[in-house]
Amino acid sequence: MTNDKMNGAESVVRSLHGAGVDVCFANPGTSEMQFVDALDRTGLMRCVLALFEGVATGAADGYARMANKPAVTLLHLAPGLANAAANMHNARKGRVPMVNLVGDHALRHREYDAPLSADVEGAAAPFSDWVKTAKTPETFGADAIEALGVAKSYPNRVATLIAPADVGWDAGGIIAPPPAAPLFAALNSAALDRAVSMLGEGTVILVAGRVLEDPGAVALLQGIAQKTGAHICAPTSNRRFDRGAGRAGIARVPYPINQALEALRPCRRAILIETVPPVAFFAYPDRPSHLLPEGCETMTLAGLDGDGPAAVAALADRVGAKPFVPFAALPPAPQAGAITVDTIAAAVANALPDNAIIVDESVTGGRDLFRQTMAAPPHSWIGLTGGAIGDGIPMALGAAIACPDRPVLNLQADGSAMYTLQGLWSQAREGANVTTVIFANRTYEILKNELFAVGANPGRSALDMLDLDRPNLDFVSLARGMGVPGQRIEDVADLQRAMAAAMEEPGPYLIEAAM
Amino acid sequence: MTNDKMNGAESVVRSLHGAGVDVCFANPGTSEMQFVDALDRTGLMRCVLALFEGVATGAADGYARMANKPAVTLLHLAPGLANAAANMHNARKGRVPMVNLVGDHALRHREYDAPLSADVEGAAAPFSDWVKTAKTPETFGADAIEALGVAKSYPNRVATLIAPADVGWDAGGIIAPPPAAPLFAALNSAALDRAVSMLGEGTVILVAGRVLEDPGAVALLQGIAQKTGAHICAPTSNRRFDRGAGRAGIARVPYPINQALEALRPCRRAILIETVPPVAFFAYPDRPSHLLPEGCETMTLAGLDGDGPAAVAALADRVGAKPFVPFAALPPAPQAGAITVDTIAAAVANALPDNAIIVDESVTGGRDLFRQTMAAPPHSWIGLTGGAIGDGIPMALGAAIACPDRPVLNLQADGSAMYTLQGLWSQAREGANVTTVIFANRTYEILKNELFAVGANPGRSALDMLDLDRPNLDFVSLARGMGVPGQRIEDVADLQRAMAAAMEEPGPYLIEAAM
Repeated sequence: MTNDKMNGAESVVRSLHGAGVDVCFANPGTSEMQFVDALDRTGLMRCVLALFEGVATGAADGYARMANKPAVTLLHLAPGLANAAANMHNARKGRVPMVNLVGDHALRHREYDAPLSADVEGAAAPFSDWVKTAKTPETFGADAIEALGVAKSYPNRVATLIAPADVGWDAGGIIAPPPAAPLFAALNSAALDRAVSMLGEGTVILVAGRVLEDPGAVALLQGIAQKTGAHICAPTSNRRFDRGAGRAGIARVPYPINQALEALRPCRRAILIETVPPVAFFAYPDRPSHLLPEGCETMTLAGLDGDGPAAVAALADRVGAKPFVPFAALPPAPQAGAITVDTIAAAVANALPDNAIIVDESVTGGRDLFRQTMAAPPHSWIGLTGGAIGDGIPMALGAAIACPDRPVLNLQADGSAMYTLQGLWSQAREGANVTTVIFANRTYEILKNELFAVGANPGRSALDMLDLDRPNLDFVSLARGMGVPGQRIEDVADLQRAMAAAMEEPGPYLIEAAM
Repeated sequence: MTNDKMNGAESVVRSLHGAGVDVCFANPGTSEMQFVDALDRTGLMRCVLALFEGVATGAADGYARMANKPAVTLLHLAPGLANAAANMHNARKGRVPMVNLVGDHALRHREYDAPLSADVEGAAAPFSDWVKTAKTPETFGADAIEALGVAKSYPNRVATLIAPADVGWDAGGIIAPPPAAPLFAALNSAALDRAVSMLGEGTVILVAGRVLEDPGAVALLQGIAQKTGAHICAPTSNRRFDRGAGRAGIARVPYPINQALEALRPCRRAILIETVPPVAFFAYPDRPSHLLPEGCETMTLAGLDGDGPAAVAALADRVGAKPFVPFAALPPAPQAGAITVDTIAAAVANALPDNAIIVDESVTGGRDLFRQTMAAPPHSWIGLTGGAIGDGIPMALGAAIACPDRPVLNLQADGSAMYTLQGLWSQAREGANVTTVIFANRTYEILKNELFAVGANPGRSALDMLDLDRPNLDFVSLARGMGVPGQRIEDVADLQRAMAAAMEEPGPYLIEAAM
């Protein structure tokens, strides 16, 4: 369909909408006004304003994890893209589909080194799987569909389309048809044979991606484990788990390097499904980068582009395994007392309603959360995937927009919260049912651990770089400033009640949990 | 000097300190712990913690503009660099010296695609004039000095040194001597002859850079204008002005495209000193990118690498011009009434004490500020240079650290404030004497103007992308949440009194000026 009256920007909006994209997380500037205009005139997408670009991409990350389809973001030039990049990074490492539209100067204006000029393609490349600059209004719609196709292919990807202003405002836009449905790489029968032969004591099946979002597949894996003596395990960071009471759980590789090495030390064989061999977050003097022990026989049953649940089903079929849900106990509700890493996990587990979404950026304060919520009511769990802190508050916004009928519980470290705190305002504007619990230990605790790990004996100047005191952050005031009500809580039983009440109420709420 | 016990990180700290760098704006992570340790053990630098990387680079920008030397920033991997990039961009466009140290994974860990891995050099390049990755502890100190030399050369630059963790923690560091003093490009006598011949009615002298920081040079320029009929003018965005009562002022090229074209329409000849031909911030349909009229004869008397004040002195000498300070009147103090774009400028002009520093990111709300403060007590003026909003609050922090005895007045648009609001916390921790005045018009007014300019007739969805209401931001609560006291003010006479009082008091204060 051609329309001489349609400009490039409108053809992009109509093409993406025709392919199922109906949410736009936006922080536009001058060079995106033709998109604001096209979104406004067509009324085809829900537009969510972010006050900072990292909120837009973080929200798109959370949205896609829960909606199983990408949103589009609208960003402004190279600095706007850079502000968005940390959460593009997290999405990319989590293999979450995302389409970014980044306005640039009109093609004819680029040579002049205007104040906002910088290399947008260059800025996008380190944080995108695919980058393209639109060239004409006629091909702009097709470019957007190409970006969407890339984002939705397996593994899911981050696609960034750069939109020179004149390509958006000039007439000649053509609506492009939706992309072809993505295909998985086929399961290799020789690989299946080999995997079957490797099962037994000393074998670990490492699984990620879509398997963790499929409780039936995880139950089959536990059945295989029960039958063969293999262990099953997920990587430290994952896009999403669907888990909780009545569903089979799965352990994760621990984050601390020594614990990770210890957990994987018995492995003599490793079977990989939708993942790659696990590596340490950071290098340390005298520690290996690979987490599997040296000499561990490693094979890939389904790659990142494979169909993990189908591979699990085939493997279970070959060994005659049935679904198995290991027993997990809900921890007792905490009694009155201090909020600590130990007690807060039990409070969360006992406060959680049915069908909630947990957004985990609790870092050190939440180290026992994953285990203790294994038997909490069924829920989805999404967490930080790329290590770039500042994804929690925006992801919670996006998850709430994807799933308006599900309460969202954002378990949020205080230091990390300060990177994209502006997302609270968008939560308020959108009426998002998000309960944010700030784990207020007033320190970058994880960095203290790391500093001690390199053998330092920190003095005042070092501690000043790691502590969040002088002055203390008052998150209740910060939330109020952005239209989100809240309270500070010091008792863990009070905390459990407050979390349960906030999740039951519509709209956002913030609890500063004093740790 | 070699020291087998010294690691690479310590050699960098000692080398930079030996060359005069004594402030570090830091947002470190795991891969920078050896720098935190070295800074702590040596005690050579004042370390200022930022809760977000854009605060660190924005503070380094404001610091360098007022200290006339760079600070060093400490950043964490590619996502941390990206978070810092918008204010690197502003510094780069303002030709402000900056040295960034960015930690990366240990060289041996890079091949493993760990969660935080991404192309740090690629992420740095669009926002840096110079990028290098350190390779050995022995050469790391020299790399830092090379970065500093690049930053301090003319024009000043943004230099980014990437520091793999092992290069920092391994022993073998060598302290490097300070860089050679930077040299200006020599004044070309033929160019001087030509410039002299071009002076007269219809000539504009466009000056920027160091000239605007030298009231004597501006007075000489005004003398040349008086004597020859030439006009003098500064670009729209500049690194710094030193101006006010008793000093010669200078007009700027207006920001709005039509006003800029109108202001420069009479120019038939243009002489450039420490600047380039002015271009529009953005391209617009039916508007040129160049702001000087077609056919305007343009020549460069002193380039970006030249000594502008010396060029001005030579030009004045050739035409026999003497320093001239045009008369400028202080506007009357505003009476009680609403705070508007007209009244707020007069309130600022009358509130300003001697020797203050104005940090201007007021955008549309401050459109009359520059003119109306021409006769305010002598002050420095630093403003947004690269168009990437979110530089004001951090720049004010950096300026206060560079000049602890001067009050800093940050005139701050509300929308822009939300990008790097975290800087308020660092102001509180450092006891910075910064008075932040939020121009709270609750809209991205500049974008509304742009949307109307492209001919749109915005509906609710478009306006929602441009208005900052639903909910209103409460900046007094936001400031309180970060330890900064404040108040909301609706009357302009009250505003003047409150600004004056806050600047007299030590420590930070925030005023939300309801517009």
